[in-house]
Amino acid sequence: MTTHRYSNPRFNPARYRRFEVINKRDRRWPDQQIQVAPLWCSVDLRDGNQALIEPMSVAQKQAMWGLLVKMGFKQIEVGFPSASQPDFDFVRWLIEANQIPADVTIQVLVQARDELIERTYEALEGVPRAIVHVYNSTSPTQREKVFGLDKAGIIAVARKGAAKVKAEAEKHPETQWTFQYSPESFSGTEVDFAVEVCDAVIDVWQPTPDNKAIINLPATVESAMPNVFADQIELFCDTVKKRDSILISIHTHNDRGCGVAAAEMAILAGADRIEGTLLGNGERTGNMDIVTMAMNMYSQGIDPELDISIADEIIATVESCTAIKTHPRHPWVGELVYTAFSGSHQDAIRKCLAVQKDEAYWDVAYLPIDPQDIGRNYQSVIRVNSQSGKGGASYLLEQAMGVTLPRWVQIELAQPVQKQAEQQEGELSTEDIVRVFRKNFMTSHGQLQLDSYQIDSHGGEHRVQAGLNDGSNIRLVHGHGNGALSAFTDALHKALGITVQVVQFDEQAVSEGSDAQAIAFIQANINGQRFTAAAQDEDTLSASMNAILAVVNQALEQQAAVA
Amino acid sequence: MTTHRYSNPRFNPARYRRFEVINKRDRRWPDQQIQVAPLWCSVDLRDGNQALIEPMSVAQKQAMWGLLVKMGFKQIEVGFPSASQPDFDFVRWLIEANQIPADVTIQVLVQARDELIERTYEALEGVPRAIVHVYNSTSPTQREKVFGLDKAGIIAVARKGAAKVKAEAEKHPETQWTFQYSPESFSGTEVDFAVEVCDAVIDVWQPTPDNKAIINLPATVESAMPNVFADQIELFCDTVKKRDSILISIHTHNDRGCGVAAAEMAILAGADRIEGTLLGNGERTGNMDIVTMAMNMYSQGIDPELDISIADEIIATVESCTAIKTHPRHPWVGELVYTAFSGSHQDAIRKCLAVQKDEAYWDVAYLPIDPQDIGRNYQSVIRVNSQSGKGGASYLLEQAMGVTLPRWVQIELAQPVQKQAEQQEGELSTEDIVRVFRKNFMTSHGQLQLDSYQIDSHGGEHRVQAGLNDGSNIRLVHGHGNGALSAFTDALHKALGITVQVVQFDEQAVSEGSDAQAIAFIQANINGQRFTAAAQDEDTLSASMNAILAVVNQALEQQAAVA
Repeated sequence: MTTHRYSNPRFNPARYRRFEVINKRDRRWPDQQIQVAPLWCSVDLRDGNQALIEPMSVAQKQAMWGLLVKMGFKQIEVGFPSASQPDFDFVRWLIEANQIPADVTIQVLVQARDELIERTYEALEGVPRAIVHVYNSTSPTQREKVFGLDKAGIIAVARKGAAKVKAEAEKHPETQWTFQYSPESFSGTEVDFAVEVCDAVIDVWQPTPDNKAIINLPATVESAMPNVFADQIELFCDTVKKRDSILISIHTHNDRGCGVAAAEMAILAGADRIEGTLLGNGERTGNMDIVTMAMNMYSQGIDPELDISIADEIIATVESCTAIKTHPRHPWVGELVYTAFSGSHQDAIRKCLAVQKDEAYWDVAYLPIDPQDIGRNYQSVIRVNSQSGKGGASYLLEQAMGVTLPRWVQIELAQPVQKQAEQQEGELSTEDIVRVFRKNFMTSHGQLQLDSYQIDSHGGEHRVQAGLNDGSNIRLVHGHGNGALSAFTDALHKALGITVQVVQFDEQAVSEGSDAQAIAFIQANINGQRFTAAAQDEDTLSASMNAILAVVNQALEQQAAVA
Repeated sequence: MTTHRYSNPRFNPARYRRFEVINKRDRRWPDQQIQVAPLWCSVDLRDGNQALIEPMSVAQKQAMWGLLVKMGFKQIEVGFPSASQPDFDFVRWLIEANQIPADVTIQVLVQARDELIERTYEALEGVPRAIVHVYNSTSPTQREKVFGLDKAGIIAVARKGAAKVKAEAEKHPETQWTFQYSPESFSGTEVDFAVEVCDAVIDVWQPTPDNKAIINLPATVESAMPNVFADQIELFCDTVKKRDSILISIHTHNDRGCGVAAAEMAILAGADRIEGTLLGNGERTGNMDIVTMAMNMYSQGIDPELDISIADEIIATVESCTAIKTHPRHPWVGELVYTAFSGSHQDAIRKCLAVQKDEAYWDVAYLPIDPQDIGRNYQSVIRVNSQSGKGGASYLLEQAMGVTLPRWVQIELAQPVQKQAEQQEGELSTEDIVRVFRKNFMTSHGQLQLDSYQIDSHGGEHRVQAGLNDGSNIRLVHGHGNGALSAFTDALHKALGITVQVVQFDEQAVSEGSDAQAIAFIQANINGQRFTAAAQDEDTLSASMNAILAVVNQALEQQAAVA
């Protein structure tokens, strides 16, 4: 045996300790099942925002807030106002511009320090309801190495913070206050000590069954398997004071890739409330992903009490606020999760779909839910020429047209190509494939054609005027937005009442062939359905606008066909 | 109450059924801990490859194979040779070109159908060792809707396939055969029926403790919580025949985002072997990610018996084979997972690092492992001007230079900017930041300068000749590769013995300012360390080559400083 079989000599498991497990004798959680949705709390505007290289702008925060409210979140952590002026200002905007619906409560985070707590209440002045979320850190590592305090010292910090939170709240009886405490680094803290700290806080707050406090237990760093975390939660729930007067909240991170499993098992172990973010944005590996957990429940017949049916809008808003693309294999919503490449999978799905009745429980092999529930379609991807080791149809098309197809266009192309191959009963030529592509994505015989446009850009704000030819008249439409394309979709919305939610957009130079210089590919969600189109033009902006108009024409044609 | 609170009226949880749980009375797995690494089997070249829009080329398969062997996999599923000619050809290449090390066993997948099994053994002709992995589908959905068979019919298919596998093997006694059976869709199958089918196969194969068969239990679609899956596995292990003569293998997918947790808990429940892929590539949401599971064990002091220390090489090869980018928050290896943005996190990490001794167990808040173990650095990201709602230093630099910094460059820039801010004891001007950027990433005072180059591209193969000025002489270097840059790194490797593993590469047009037209950013791993550089030039290719040369110069300078 050599000392190291590893390429990097620093790679040495002996440097790490096993996590400590609880020798639990009365474990009950593995016999439980999730029955109803937990109380959800989004921390996108705090933990999520804080973990971005470029924190959200005011406009991005407003967009995220709008999405969270639309999805049905009733509790939303909106920032750390005592540590960040932008967070302070955002809280003020929510309150002063009367942005908080009557059934939504905002939450703010603050360390257990007097001056920060005072500043926090300044930020909250005049709010009808709020959750004040105070924390200090409790693990041995934090006690010994970061704060240089013993257990009694940590308890004193928590107690003092809790008292200050209560005292400041009493100055503002016009607000309906809820208090929340987190023993930060709970996952690395001895459970009995975490209980001791939380009991001290509960002693100060004296919550009642009618006026509960929230005790939030974070896996600040995920450091054990989810079953070990569930044991910790069950033990905590069994031993904490006044269990009937507190809500147990869970806040997991994803360092071991098990943040969702840990939150789900914590529910089995007695937790009432889940903090997380959309698509798992957050520090390091991210917070637990509320979209995945909600869809996990949905797929088992449990009402998630969050509107995930607008999956495309969720993705678009999160991506525009975080600048992080959604992974194509992201559970439930990634672009590849309703595809089937294997012939045997495709065959099984076809047979199941053929006998699936609307009134029966969904039961289709390889498709845990009906993709249409969240505005998607099942996509069977056939490789026209799998022998080539290339993507078949896409490869041939790319060669012929001198473009590189984005992955999502490749997927969209697969189905019409397959249909054509079945009709022809044989392999398709490159010309056949180009014809299929043009027919399905580039037909310009739609009702509306772009006749002319003017763009006026000023200080980041774009105004567009476009002339649309409907076959007999030129109709002028006007819109504005933070880019030329969003201004154009705004104009279409105002003139036609059609909302174009752009899901995918790619534009590229065409490397050879015709005199067209640019090709734009677009996928958009219109009235819950996805449409895909492409357009070529010498002018890049015209190509984009024509592509948008093409999906609108597709939607109009479908409406006409239905009507 | 309204009938639907959901934007999409199809979104209706009542269409879905609860998964069936086992009322387990003798559950033992929650008291177990993982003690040693399981027997790992990579299915990247089969399940992973099969789920790609563009399946791997021969060169990509060879690169993936080389990586898997280098990492230390002893069992590797290399394809489905009876269903795919490229897979067949690849198996033949492995055997005929003598590519299989003495301690590695290849595995091939085949459906339980006679003609496919025969073709599979054709592919394996002359292999010293192999695992023949045969399967048929067993769940009620598959039985009733896809195959139209009752339980007896499914058992008959399995038994017939097992007998054929055995009979074909007996024709080739020169090969050391191992048999593997999967009840496909196990996760959706009644456990007692899965046991019945597997028992039938075991009856045919008659494995012994010295010559074990493998029974592989797939969560073909992840459809229950990981604790429910663990209950299924424990019950299966308790009731299957000849437990001492079989290895229980687990193959989970990630439909509920819990594929790693399910595999880990299956180990607690008695499984011996794990099938998965690197970074979780695979059908739909992907297979369970072996990198995450191995690193989860590593971080608890368990030798993973896989070389994850070459994380950058793993990522580079997987990305080049799958065309899927690694998510920036991917557990253990994503580009953001060793960053800290919050001041309190940065403070805690600094205090812990200051007292961390080499011989002591690693114990640093917010950093579950020492990032250097896998060739990374801890990155504290300071926002110079967080009030602006922009990325501070990066934002100012982008404005000044007319470029858009890739996220990884923004992170790399944060530390030298912070250092400079500490030295100056005040806020940095835009000019300060540009100076820091140029000094750290664009200094061209290195030993080697690019004097001239010639590129010859022919049928996808690129040859490069470059003249390197070392201050006194021009040295000609030669290399080839499938692109100009890989040819150039090949030339540097041949001439200087330096291996440049490109981790990140971005190139863009410069929108204003100087007469330079392109800027190239590169991050490369050289001898286990990461270096970052940028270069500007009127010619895009020169910019790229100069950036590569800049990281090589950084590595040479560091070598000189150490020597």
